[in-house]
Amino acid sequence: MKSLSLSKLIHNTEISLRNIMNKNLHVVIMAGGTGTRFWPYSRNDKPKQFIDALGTGRSLLQMTYDRFAASVPNENIWIVSNEIYRDLLSEQLPELRQDNILLEPLKRNTAPCIAYAAYKIKQQDPNAIMAVLPSDHVIFKEEKFLEVINTAVEGCDDQALITIGIEPNRPETGYGYIQYLDDVDNPLKPVKTFTEKPELDLAKKFLESGDFVWNAGIFVWSVKAIISAFEKHQPELAETFEEGKEQYFTENEASFIKDAYAVSKSVSIDYAIMEKADHVNVVLGDFGWSDLGSWNALHEIKEKDKDGNVLEGDILTYQSKDNYILSKSKRLIVAEGLEGYLIADFNDVLLICRKEDSGIFREFVSDVKEQKGDKFI
Amino acid sequence: MKSLSLSKLIHNTEISLRNIMNKNLHVVIMAGGTGTRFWPYSRNDKPKQFIDALGTGRSLLQMTYDRFAASVPNENIWIVSNEIYRDLLSEQLPELRQDNILLEPLKRNTAPCIAYAAYKIKQQDPNAIMAVLPSDHVIFKEEKFLEVINTAVEGCDDQALITIGIEPNRPETGYGYIQYLDDVDNPLKPVKTFTEKPELDLAKKFLESGDFVWNAGIFVWSVKAIISAFEKHQPELAETFEEGKEQYFTENEASFIKDAYAVSKSVSIDYAIMEKADHVNVVLGDFGWSDLGSWNALHEIKEKDKDGNVLEGDILTYQSKDNYILSKSKRLIVAEGLEGYLIADFNDVLLICRKEDSGIFREFVSDVKEQKGDKFI
Repeated sequence: MKSLSLSKLIHNTEISLRNIMNKNLHVVIMAGGTGTRFWPYSRNDKPKQFIDALGTGRSLLQMTYDRFAASVPNENIWIVSNEIYRDLLSEQLPELRQDNILLEPLKRNTAPCIAYAAYKIKQQDPNAIMAVLPSDHVIFKEEKFLEVINTAVEGCDDQALITIGIEPNRPETGYGYIQYLDDVDNPLKPVKTFTEKPELDLAKKFLESGDFVWNAGIFVWSVKAIISAFEKHQPELAETFEEGKEQYFTENEASFIKDAYAVSKSVSIDYAIMEKADHVNVVLGDFGWSDLGSWNALHEIKEKDKDGNVLEGDILTYQSKDNYILSKSKRLIVAEGLEGYLIADFNDVLLICRKEDSGIFREFVSDVKEQKGDKFI
Repeated sequence: MKSLSLSKLIHNTEISLRNIMNKNLHVVIMAGGTGTRFWPYSRNDKPKQFIDALGTGRSLLQMTYDRFAASVPNENIWIVSNEIYRDLLSEQLPELRQDNILLEPLKRNTAPCIAYAAYKIKQQDPNAIMAVLPSDHVIFKEEKFLEVINTAVEGCDDQALITIGIEPNRPETGYGYIQYLDDVDNPLKPVKTFTEKPELDLAKKFLESGDFVWNAGIFVWSVKAIISAFEKHQPELAETFEEGKEQYFTENEASFIKDAYAVSKSVSIDYAIMEKADHVNVVLGDFGWSDLGSWNALHEIKEKDKDGNVLEGDILTYQSKDNYILSKSKRLIVAEGLEGYLIADFNDVLLICRKEDSGIFREFVSDVKEQKGDKFI
């Protein structure tokens, strides 16, 4: 291997990836979130997934796309997002056809989003296998990740509904957990139960138990399997999106989808299907994953100074540690005597809060909207 | 009294004050400070004394002037400040003649400042009595204050050097103390000793002792008495300013003062005279005084919400108490989980620090100046 040139090495890697990845694999990236917990960094007109939060020069959405771009052709990569982000999407992912950008007129959580993608993809390829992912997670070991996805893909048939479970390394209270039956021979483990985000004591028990993994919100299934599951468990949604057969890929798709969403209930794929269905399996993975679900999570993965501070901007600190100070306003910031705080300084808004308190962001955003209207949101 | 109209009452009060106040009384207001401990509110180009810190529509300097304006004629009110504040002074105190605004070319602490005033006033009125005051204190009970000043004035002769001592109500560690011999019959109490700012334990002992008062930095003496004291204890300063006899009140005064300050040592009146001299007395007072020496002091006197926060600006708070949040930038501020902090939000600078830590401001200002130059200072 050492005698190969670098470009040949990259070329070989790309071929390997392309060979590994099933040619029926379609990647669906869910990019409709509002990123409330990253306010005021994340705003309604440019939420979290569209932001270069890691300072890599690529937004979280672009990084999610990049993860598959070498191994999955562009016509098999799909984005589902809100129609208000039409321009941002074209701007950030110019490689994709308009047809591959599915625009939702309303927020209806993940089940309708996935139904829309499934029925449309089926039109293009009835034998498609779908990998469904959030657009705003971070994954550090991308090759390991692709291997795990591939394992799941290889396990797909007409029935299996697979979710990816992250091997936990701490009693995290910010994720839901999946309990599984440890069938040692098979990488697809039958799921026993899905749990809500646990309190700390329960999270510790989950860890001790040894058969619990974090729910990463990543799914893999054949189009056939997911559509069967919709037909069985969400017949109204199935019927609604089945009716788009003649409209998908035509100029009538948008108007059809407008009506479809108007009558669709807002429900998560977890509640609508995964917690009800048979043939639900988990494939375990350990690939340096974070859902970046809070400023605290972002703090954890970023480079810190000797006092554990993440400092982004023109900042002087005194007796301060373990803080995240981000300034986008070009002001000079002087901070003294702070431990464990977030200071997010923007031209129009300044937020100072305890870095751990991610649950309260919904309240911030709601109160600000109520008291000040939409301009800060 | 109740049958008098309000305007007659005010008129009568003014007459009373004018009758109370000795017609030889000259008020000298020291307005040269840089207000470092109120950075970034206080800046070099507009320090603390020129700011409407209390939201009354008048700056601290103007409020100091106002305190005497009804009872002391304008030609007997003098300001000593730095020449860089020439325009601010004219703007804020248009009632005063140029002659009454003494401009220092250099910072030399309070002894040269007072010497300049004393020698110039002597020129106008050899029998003058001087009340020397800082420009940035706050006094809530102004009538009581004037009575105390009057008591001191009435006690002046050719030798007495009088300072005003505030009856302490807590073991304050931010003020120097004065120990006195409690001569019950005489409002002028001989001073036994001046102390530095004490640690808490010592401050408590001072309080228990019952013969200690806070040093307010307010002085009353006849021009004759202070000049005798300079001649005895600071002969170089005495000689320097005596030499201005022909220059005071002429167009040559500024150039004389430039030379005078170049050769004057920088020393406080306390160290130069008060701690050395004979005939040093204290008159006790209790008139709602604060030196406003820190943001914490400002927080104490301002109106607070039910959580003990002073909020000045567009601010939402969550689980936050006992904070001082001041926004001059028009930003929306959201603060959560903070207790006892100062947030001072300006267009160019944001400062967040523990409200109590006033000692560190010197370091802030010095570091910012060193690292960023003068633009934030």
